[in-house]
Amino acid sequence: MGEEISNKQVILNNYVKAYVKESDMSLRTSKIQLKIPSGCDDAVLLKNLYLSIDPFIPKHMKKEENYITPYKLNSPIFGYGVSKVLDSSHPNFKMGELVWGFIYLEEYSLIKDPNVLFKVHDKDLPLSYYTGILGMPGMTAYVGFFEFCSPKKGETVYVSAASGAIGQLVGQFAKNAGCYVVGSAGSKEKSVVALMKVDLLKNKFGFDEAFNYKEEQDYNAALKRYFPDGIDIYFENVGGKMLEAVLSNMRLYGRVAVCGMISQYNIEQHEGVHNLLYILTKRIRMEGYYVTDHYHIYPKYLEMVMPLIKEEKIAYVEDIVEGIESVPGAIVGLFSGRNVGKQVVVVARE
Amino acid sequence: MGEEISNKQVILNNYVKAYVKESDMSLRTSKIQLKIPSGCDDAVLLKNLYLSIDPFIPKHMKKEENYITPYKLNSPIFGYGVSKVLDSSHPNFKMGELVWGFIYLEEYSLIKDPNVLFKVHDKDLPLSYYTGILGMPGMTAYVGFFEFCSPKKGETVYVSAASGAIGQLVGQFAKNAGCYVVGSAGSKEKSVVALMKVDLLKNKFGFDEAFNYKEEQDYNAALKRYFPDGIDIYFENVGGKMLEAVLSNMRLYGRVAVCGMISQYNIEQHEGVHNLLYILTKRIRMEGYYVTDHYHIYPKYLEMVMPLIKEEKIAYVEDIVEGIESVPGAIVGLFSGRNVGKQVVVVARE
Repeated sequence: MGEEISNKQVILNNYVKAYVKESDMSLRTSKIQLKIPSGCDDAVLLKNLYLSIDPFIPKHMKKEENYITPYKLNSPIFGYGVSKVLDSSHPNFKMGELVWGFIYLEEYSLIKDPNVLFKVHDKDLPLSYYTGILGMPGMTAYVGFFEFCSPKKGETVYVSAASGAIGQLVGQFAKNAGCYVVGSAGSKEKSVVALMKVDLLKNKFGFDEAFNYKEEQDYNAALKRYFPDGIDIYFENVGGKMLEAVLSNMRLYGRVAVCGMISQYNIEQHEGVHNLLYILTKRIRMEGYYVTDHYHIYPKYLEMVMPLIKEEKIAYVEDIVEGIESVPGAIVGLFSGRNVGKQVVVVARE
Repeated sequence: MGEEISNKQVILNNYVKAYVKESDMSLRTSKIQLKIPSGCDDAVLLKNLYLSIDPFIPKHMKKEENYITPYKLNSPIFGYGVSKVLDSSHPNFKMGELVWGFIYLEEYSLIKDPNVLFKVHDKDLPLSYYTGILGMPGMTAYVGFFEFCSPKKGETVYVSAASGAIGQLVGQFAKNAGCYVVGSAGSKEKSVVALMKVDLLKNKFGFDEAFNYKEEQDYNAALKRYFPDGIDIYFENVGGKMLEAVLSNMRLYGRVAVCGMISQYNIEQHEGVHNLLYILTKRIRMEGYYVTDHYHIYPKYLEMVMPLIKEEKIAYVEDIVEGIESVPGAIVGLFSGRNVGKQVVVVARE
């Protein structure tokens, strides 16, 4: 029998209808033994260090959302994190190893089927990077941009939600590929944060142009201003009216990688897109993807991105807050645009 | 100087706003010399035999439609046809040869840049087939289904506007590929014609199921009835509300080849599609295409389809009307669903 200790967990109290609120979640303290129960093969027991706060989380908070597994009520919610293996009955994992992947948002997790856990090989870089540039968001940017958008030098690229974990990387990958890149970001606070984001996009991430979409009455006009000759590639994170404006501004043979549609997650009546005829007349390819279908090329991604990070050819910004108690606020904050860069919660440093 | 003779032409009188009416077009008789004018290199002079009446025609009748070249007013409208070469200054074409491709809807055409003209090699089959199964619609079905839908044996396929020139072929290609195929068709006349179409789909073209969409109040419910386990491939000819219902019923990793969106051509306010979030959550690929980008694989198509026709493994239905005067009525008729099978106008038989 291992030591039994307390385990703080983030719990979903009730299914969410429109926007998620902090009160939809609560912190619960349960108990866990720091040893894998007997008879539990191929499992790992993890101490979670960094929790990744991602925009997909609220999608699982609805009772019946299309093709998305809802969280169980009164159970810890799942998500990504970086963890240390405390015990293992799985042949691929050993005590003391560091891993990143699919866990529960709690202090300790017993993972019975660790098929989305990857080992952390390179410990020179901050461990928190494995919730971002070296983890799911990095792979999402890589797969979406290179596998789905087939970029060519000189093409024009638009990234919405560009200051987030994924968008900032897509923009930099696009610049590396010789493209012209414009990003949009915004903040409900319409404020210093919004200014900061736009400034980051241009001055830290090297986007050619950036704008605060909250200041634009007419997305169509904004896109025409930044793309007078149209958009070849749209990295879609937003959906709804933004997608409609982009389709109007796309060029022939444009490509849309649908990574997210954040504007459509938390509303009951989804916005209509009225100009899909452009998909035909401009011969556009639009494709949705989940990074989970593409983890087999993770080693290929590391091979590309590791040198870029080490040679400081890529910038990466995180927004790290302390303590598991911060998780509900951090999740809600994603949608009010409060965070700048990848939102991470640190639970323990080792 | 060649003989000068009269040349009846189909003219666009005015740009069209909503539905095309016969009165938007008129017949004009002009004169043409049956010889290529001197100094006009790389041209062919054609006697047009069969004119192809295709749903794309009204798209060019609008002054400013997205990314579509409008017809010139008071000029003959362009389209596809099968023709005989009367004179040629182009090295690839000789007097007396039969060709199919892009011409004008008139009795005789001087084509100055014959880059979309193909030779008719096989004269055993009806010449009119080169407006359909052996021409643009056949290639459109082939490219859309095989190149864009990547069908696998056992997959489920839905074809809208299935009794048209393209749809009937897609359904049969899908059956040949071992798929389960359902087609929808309809007729405003809600009548014998509609019954005939549904009967044709099932009994002549071998679709597994077929329905008249005009009899369905709820497309979503209709699709659930025919596809209890969902749709893998949608061959899109319709758009709007039908597309929305299909997206709701698609399976994971579904593919949508956007060949047409006939419900959206003739209306001023395009319908909104509200459930594009499914593109993300079901990881759907949706792609628009024009057959004109793919004519380089025409020989490959002929290799596949010729044996199927000769061995009577594929059925093909035409609706042939006589005389160039029938063109305006035939174009309008496409949208009221009056025709059954590929609509052709015969101008001359040789």
